[in-house]
Amino acid sequence: MGVVPMESSGSSENVESRVHELNINEEERNGEVEKEEELSVEQIFAKKEVPSWKKQLTVRAFVVSFVLSVMFSFIVMKLNLTVGIIPSLNVSAGLLGFFFVKTWTKLLERSGLLKQPFTRQENTVIQTCVVAASGIAYSGGFGSYLFAMSERVVKQSEKSQDGLEYKNPELGWMFGFLFVVSFLGLFSLVPLRKIMIVDFKLTYPSGTATAHLINSFHTPEGAKLAKKQVRELGKFFSFSFLWSFFQWFFTATDECGFQKFPTFGLKAFENKFYFDFSATYVGVGMICPHIVNVSVLIGGILSWGIMWPLIETRKGHWYTDLDPNSMQGLKGYQVFIGIALILGDGLYSFTKVLSQTMADLYKKIQSRKAMPIPVSERSSPVTKTLSYDDQCRTQLFLKDQIPTWVAIGGYIAIAIVSTATLPHIFHQLKWYHIIVIYTFAPVLAFCNAFGCGLTDWSLASAYGKLAIFTIGAWAGASHGGVLAGLAACGVMMNIVSTASDLMQDFKTGYMTLASPRSMFVSQGIGTAMGCVISPCVFWIFYKAFPDLGMESSEYPAPFASVYYNMAKLGVEGFSALPKECLKLCYAFFAAALLINIIRDALGKKRSWFIPLPMAMAIPFFLGSYFAIDMCIGSLILYIWQKRNKAGADAFAPAVASGLICGDGIWALPSSILALAGLKPPICMKFLSRSINNKVDSYLGS
Amino acid sequence: MGVVPMESSGSSENVESRVHELNINEEERNGEVEKEEELSVEQIFAKKEVPSWKKQLTVRAFVVSFVLSVMFSFIVMKLNLTVGIIPSLNVSAGLLGFFFVKTWTKLLERSGLLKQPFTRQENTVIQTCVVAASGIAYSGGFGSYLFAMSERVVKQSEKSQDGLEYKNPELGWMFGFLFVVSFLGLFSLVPLRKIMIVDFKLTYPSGTATAHLINSFHTPEGAKLAKKQVRELGKFFSFSFLWSFFQWFFTATDECGFQKFPTFGLKAFENKFYFDFSATYVGVGMICPHIVNVSVLIGGILSWGIMWPLIETRKGHWYTDLDPNSMQGLKGYQVFIGIALILGDGLYSFTKVLSQTMADLYKKIQSRKAMPIPVSERSSPVTKTLSYDDQCRTQLFLKDQIPTWVAIGGYIAIAIVSTATLPHIFHQLKWYHIIVIYTFAPVLAFCNAFGCGLTDWSLASAYGKLAIFTIGAWAGASHGGVLAGLAACGVMMNIVSTASDLMQDFKTGYMTLASPRSMFVSQGIGTAMGCVISPCVFWIFYKAFPDLGMESSEYPAPFASVYYNMAKLGVEGFSALPKECLKLCYAFFAAALLINIIRDALGKKRSWFIPLPMAMAIPFFLGSYFAIDMCIGSLILYIWQKRNKAGADAFAPAVASGLICGDGIWALPSSILALAGLKPPICMKFLSRSINNKVDSYLGS
Repeated sequence: MGVVPMESSGSSENVESRVHELNINEEERNGEVEKEEELSVEQIFAKKEVPSWKKQLTVRAFVVSFVLSVMFSFIVMKLNLTVGIIPSLNVSAGLLGFFFVKTWTKLLERSGLLKQPFTRQENTVIQTCVVAASGIAYSGGFGSYLFAMSERVVKQSEKSQDGLEYKNPELGWMFGFLFVVSFLGLFSLVPLRKIMIVDFKLTYPSGTATAHLINSFHTPEGAKLAKKQVRELGKFFSFSFLWSFFQWFFTATDECGFQKFPTFGLKAFENKFYFDFSATYVGVGMICPHIVNVSVLIGGILSWGIMWPLIETRKGHWYTDLDPNSMQGLKGYQVFIGIALILGDGLYSFTKVLSQTMADLYKKIQSRKAMPIPVSERSSPVTKTLSYDDQCRTQLFLKDQIPTWVAIGGYIAIAIVSTATLPHIFHQLKWYHIIVIYTFAPVLAFCNAFGCGLTDWSLASAYGKLAIFTIGAWAGASHGGVLAGLAACGVMMNIVSTASDLMQDFKTGYMTLASPRSMFVSQGIGTAMGCVISPCVFWIFYKAFPDLGMESSEYPAPFASVYYNMAKLGVEGFSALPKECLKLCYAFFAAALLINIIRDALGKKRSWFIPLPMAMAIPFFLGSYFAIDMCIGSLILYIWQKRNKAGADAFAPAVASGLICGDGIWALPSSILALAGLKPPICMKFLSRSINNKVDSYLGS
Repeated sequence: MGVVPMESSGSSENVESRVHELNINEEERNGEVEKEEELSVEQIFAKKEVPSWKKQLTVRAFVVSFVLSVMFSFIVMKLNLTVGIIPSLNVSAGLLGFFFVKTWTKLLERSGLLKQPFTRQENTVIQTCVVAASGIAYSGGFGSYLFAMSERVVKQSEKSQDGLEYKNPELGWMFGFLFVVSFLGLFSLVPLRKIMIVDFKLTYPSGTATAHLINSFHTPEGAKLAKKQVRELGKFFSFSFLWSFFQWFFTATDECGFQKFPTFGLKAFENKFYFDFSATYVGVGMICPHIVNVSVLIGGILSWGIMWPLIETRKGHWYTDLDPNSMQGLKGYQVFIGIALILGDGLYSFTKVLSQTMADLYKKIQSRKAMPIPVSERSSPVTKTLSYDDQCRTQLFLKDQIPTWVAIGGYIAIAIVSTATLPHIFHQLKWYHIIVIYTFAPVLAFCNAFGCGLTDWSLASAYGKLAIFTIGAWAGASHGGVLAGLAACGVMMNIVSTASDLMQDFKTGYMTLASPRSMFVSQGIGTAMGCVISPCVFWIFYKAFPDLGMESSEYPAPFASVYYNMAKLGVEGFSALPKECLKLCYAFFAAALLINIIRDALGKKRSWFIPLPMAMAIPFFLGSYFAIDMCIGSLILYIWQKRNKAGADAFAPAVASGLICGDGIWALPSSILALAGLKPPICMKFLSRSINNKVDSYLGS
């Protein structure tokens, strides 16, 4: 979930979308400003030869990428399946890529076997490949649309257990599905890269930030700082990993251990207010802007502190006493009010970003018309006004071309294969649905890539929701509209998200003088890796934790049930909602719009205290425990910044990444232990005094 | 427990005696050396007028002393009743005294009501008073001889429960007992103060250290450092207090909470290896020298890791399967082997310090004889060789006299009252026992004060044990020798310990230009406070925690049962020991002697790796949990010193004091809560997986 973008655009759609970060951005920019007083970036690098695009794609880069991809897939998958908030891991990917290859080349250098020095272009290739591969772990929908089709989630959401349609995850069809949909995004926008990067000069904040980071690593001072950052990352990585390991011993069942620590008392615990000692979400809180963390906490207090207890008093009136997981009971209110908030916020930002995009596009095209000679023609006088850096970059960016016929041919070929294959995987999804999606997809992908270039804000999940409702309604309830909608969501999300990722990477490549061809190949290889790694990682989780997706589990996968219920809502209308729920949903939908309007009306500076509806919605399903983790992370960062601004800015992202990665990687050994049947030996249990007395007398007798 | 002295004298008797510290000493000395290059201490203070002795005894000083005395009594009592290792609290007393009066005077200064500025003499008065008062909490024997007489301890140690003699603690007789024995020490050595401080120039390391500390506070830079130290102390005080408060909520019974956290697994927990999250003993570990912490851990591993499991395999052969608390079972081995180690170590250092004392005394007297004109006659040419500082100090020290007739008269008067009263309190103790004790006491008190002046090492508890064995054997088993021995121990310990404390204070007063009269009065008032405060504090613990003294309790008071068993051993001989225990005792007694001989033979420098037998003995009764706390403290200090030696030296004592005080003070609200019948609401329980499954199915049904 790229959470910083919210600030720049004043809204919050992608609390549930992907992975960007501006903290770093700012820092790196400052760094550059200082340097620019002496030499521009490309002047510093002027003496270093840029390797040919084929030489940028080294074997070692892909070996390192593969290792990191596996690691980040585990991390992203764990985040998907626990809370669903995914912070930017670009920094850690960049840092660790640098660290691994640097160590590698150093070792080879000593042995005299080093053939090729480590360049920033190679670093960019690794970064691109890792982000592409771990991106699949998100856009593959293992925590959302794909897992939403499973028997487990469907049965949890439905009152009557008969005649339900579901599709359980299986390695075979997941591989197939991902392979036929994930590459389309790559081909859809390739021909437009020059327009967007060189002509329109879109910023792509995340791509720019990553490029700055990589450029800085490869200057001598940058390498020194990077080394220190890696050391911090390593320290907190180990701490976080060992802490998770330690916690494991006390978690004999899901009801045991630090994850169920009633930090604020048993009463608060019942309403899901507790600190669960998760290093991950403390780290996430350190990366997310303060307002996101506070919004999440406010959402938690509003829902579990006020609304749910109030609604519970209406038990028997508004809803009859059903089992706690029924969508006809309290759970229904939780899920649907949350969805209303998410949809309200999503709709607002969708409209806003789209209209901004259109207006900007119109302006850019107008100004291009006014300028008779295109910028791209390097002999024109316009190039004279370009800075030295931009001259170098543009020259190299345009050197290696990707022929348009390759792009169009590739898109059509894959679309045909995909149209033929997908109905076999999801028989609810018809070939004509798919053709419609593939016709509109490039346009939507362009919109998203353009918006993302302006605001750093991928709306992929919003386009996915659009597909859920349209395709779902088209297929209709009687023809398995729910599953069709979810499958359509997957197709749409994958195209749109991969396309904007690729454009981000082109921007990074542009700024690090990496060839567009090597970027394209690297993203392709990364995507292929992701299509294999992600389902396998998910499969390990799925097999290792049999209660995956259950609310009380360690891995509740909250968005799976949200997506399922959205699809159902789209197909069946509002009839499924419990009493008074619809009114509440309208109110919260309107509130989300209103909050956004107020935020935009006040402007970025003056609206700092207004919470983000999207962030507020997440604890509606889950409770506040991760909000407390995140606020603690926020607090730590705040105190750190107060005491030592420079230190915090330089090292907080590394520390946070370390915390997230260490805990995330523990998921690997923990699932291996679970698969091997090794269970934790101790249960740390929390009992009220009266129950404890009972237990003591039971154990005593 | 002054634990540093062990290093200077090469042994470890007072792991179980009192409260000195050299870390500070060294630091302060370094501080002084720097200053002396410019001005000597008294030259810095030359402009400041020294108030008359009556003006040194301000009301505010005693108000602050009272508050701090209550606080430190709680802390010392808690330490007495948990593990029995009591670190130096002089630094915190000095710091907090300075802090309180400084705040007080600042407030008054602002309001224009300040009549008298805060002087270092006043600070010394507070320090003396607080140390005297909280000293009673130790020498009053609430964790050792006095509580050893109680029904609870006696019954725990005896197989047959009939016809036992005991004396339960009660406020009335405890007040009486303390008042009639505690003041004797004050009068016993007063006439000798000039000889010991001015003529013999004994060092009294703790007294000197405290004086340096107080002097440094009252210089401008010193005040600044002190302010920072107070801030650190306050920070860790709050942390430690809040942490204890937090822990409380999860401790519904003694078997719950962080104190029973099986940090290294359930198997290790059964053998008492676990980290119990006690801030106190982490702080204690930071103050104690590394070798003490390591010795404690080695002792724990040797006993609970190796010996007890081995002895347990002989169950049925060496001892029959009795209840775990019986002295005829495993517990007997634990207690008596521990006592053997303590007695061996004690005997060695007793002999060594006594012979050193005698040899030194002989030398000093010889050299005085050779010098025809006494140093004290200030007109003599000898004074010329004295430094400016010593001249000032000697002059002021000799100005205010305490007439010898007051001292002798006071001693005799109190001795008569005491001889008449004590047999009414302990009818096993006869008037002739008491007269014998009072005849020898001044000699022993002199020996102890002299030894303490040389080595900083109070042997009070060793003299106490001497009294246990001699008076106990004299009274005989049939006449309640056990109780008589314990009571005699109390009488002896109080005299000997108060006398050496007073002499330490005279040294501090000498170096801060505080009048001996104000020191004497302050110590008197402090002792009186202590005689009231300590029994009350103990009473609160005794009433609030009904399982006080039980092995499994939060407050096991381990030394109570050790003292009881020593007394029994003295009276009944070795017949009470279980099989083979005597042989093991001999072996460990010999080992303690041997270790000490090796330590002394190698010399201080080369013997750093040899453990201290006294420190090793404590975990024999208790297990290693506090050893792990202390080693963690040691580790923190070690890393801190590695990273920033100056910072660690300046702030580690403050941090450690904060940790100890915060946790210690929590004992006050926690006992109030217990008295009010408010019990913690939650039990944090640790169950093995199989038991947890049973409990879950029990709770489910």
